[in-house]
Amino acid sequence: MYGLLEGEIVQEMLGSPLETYEPTGRVWRLSSVKIEVPIVPRTFYAVGLNYVSHVKSSAAFMRRQSETPDKPDVGYRAVNALIAHDEPIIVPKDASEEIQYEGELVVVIGKKAKRLSEGEALSCVFGYTIGNDVSERSWQATDRTLWRSKNTDTFKPMGPWIETEVDLNGMQTIVRLNGTAMVRFKTNDMVFSIARYISAMSQYLTLHPGDVIWMGTDGIPANIKHGDTVEIEITGIGTLRNPVALEK
Amino acid sequence: MYGLLEGEIVQEMLGSPLETYEPTGRVWRLSSVKIEVPIVPRTFYAVGLNYVSHVKSSAAFMRRQSETPDKPDVGYRAVNALIAHDEPIIVPKDASEEIQYEGELVVVIGKKAKRLSEGEALSCVFGYTIGNDVSERSWQATDRTLWRSKNTDTFKPMGPWIETEVDLNGMQTIVRLNGTAMVRFKTNDMVFSIARYISAMSQYLTLHPGDVIWMGTDGIPANIKHGDTVEIEITGIGTLRNPVALEK
Repeated sequence: MYGLLEGEIVQEMLGSPLETYEPTGRVWRLSSVKIEVPIVPRTFYAVGLNYVSHVKSSAAFMRRQSETPDKPDVGYRAVNALIAHDEPIIVPKDASEEIQYEGELVVVIGKKAKRLSEGEALSCVFGYTIGNDVSERSWQATDRTLWRSKNTDTFKPMGPWIETEVDLNGMQTIVRLNGTAMVRFKTNDMVFSIARYISAMSQYLTLHPGDVIWMGTDGIPANIKHGDTVEIEITGIGTLRNPVALEK
Repeated sequence: MYGLLEGEIVQEMLGSPLETYEPTGRVWRLSSVKIEVPIVPRTFYAVGLNYVSHVKSSAAFMRRQSETPDKPDVGYRAVNALIAHDEPIIVPKDASEEIQYEGELVVVIGKKAKRLSEGEALSCVFGYTIGNDVSERSWQATDRTLWRSKNTDTFKPMGPWIETEVDLNGMQTIVRLNGTAMVRFKTNDMVFSIARYISAMSQYLTLHPGDVIWMGTDGIPANIKHGDTVEIEITGIGTLRNPVALEK
């Protein structure tokens, strides 16, 4: 069930923010509700290499020459892996120690769109949320695809909510591990902008309400393990927090 | 709206075959109904290299050494690209001549499943349909991901319907271009079986009702162009037929 959040107050809504909705009249304190995944995307797009220092560290990890992408090529993730704010990231028993967070801005599409110019591109955006693109690096290096490395159940925390009013150029992404800030970067300091990606994608494919695009991460992530807590803050949106637990 | 097909007769149904359904009482001739995409998958899985001769031709095309995969790593496609039986595959104006069909068996998941053994794996399958994994090879060679090459709008014909009773070992896949059989292979002669894939995937991820897994193709595909008609027949299921048209 959806709610409209203002400050600490949630107005309960019937319907969906991407279609029509109306208040039920019930109102809740934010601290008293269980937050769910804000949207289960129709198509789950994800940008792989979109910040300069992450391009370099990824290349070093994969033992390749560092190459900043020369055009916006988007990838995919899978909805089975989504979990909400406060739900645990479960580390499989056979995973290596190299499980890492990646703090990302998530674009939520609100309108059907095809062949948008860069100038028009942001007109199809409903709002923004936060994603943690949890990745097992040994599988990323050995598998032919990203299926296990990126899409094992619980590896895609997303939330806590969708913010419709943001100042993209003023936003900062801060990743905290057990309360310590590990990386901080200007959220909009991307190799290819959100508008450039949406415009390029929409020349070939139709974007639909409910599609999401994860915009990539910056910096060199650290490993996470059982008992840790990861927080991804994006200023102007909020903080996505998830504990880490070993599979039972 | 769903229907139950027996012979040439469609019984109209309320509900969904993956949940509950009941007959409306209306009955149609197959030739009088417009066939839609049989299911819009929650997650759209696709196996890349799963037949021996296709592995070799793909390697030659990508100028790499031919390597049969040593384990079942699954990939993804996107729902924006789905079209139904008889709907046109639209060739973008800036595409190269190297647009090709790939005839594939599609597995439709019917039950939520996690950690199935190979012996149990087929118990979560609802049925089977047919897919045409249309691919633009110049984009496949130059883009970092398969987004345009495989997921441009209309590049994923799927259908015509879901068959729940099949004899996997007796099935043949035949691809016809303008009526001429171009390739014929034993559908189940895969590098890794359907059961092996489902079992491997389900060790890490939860399969959900409505997920689909495209199982890959065999042989060396040919180019398709404006005015062509591609038919993928899988014996025991039916024939998926789509015309090809240049973008207007």
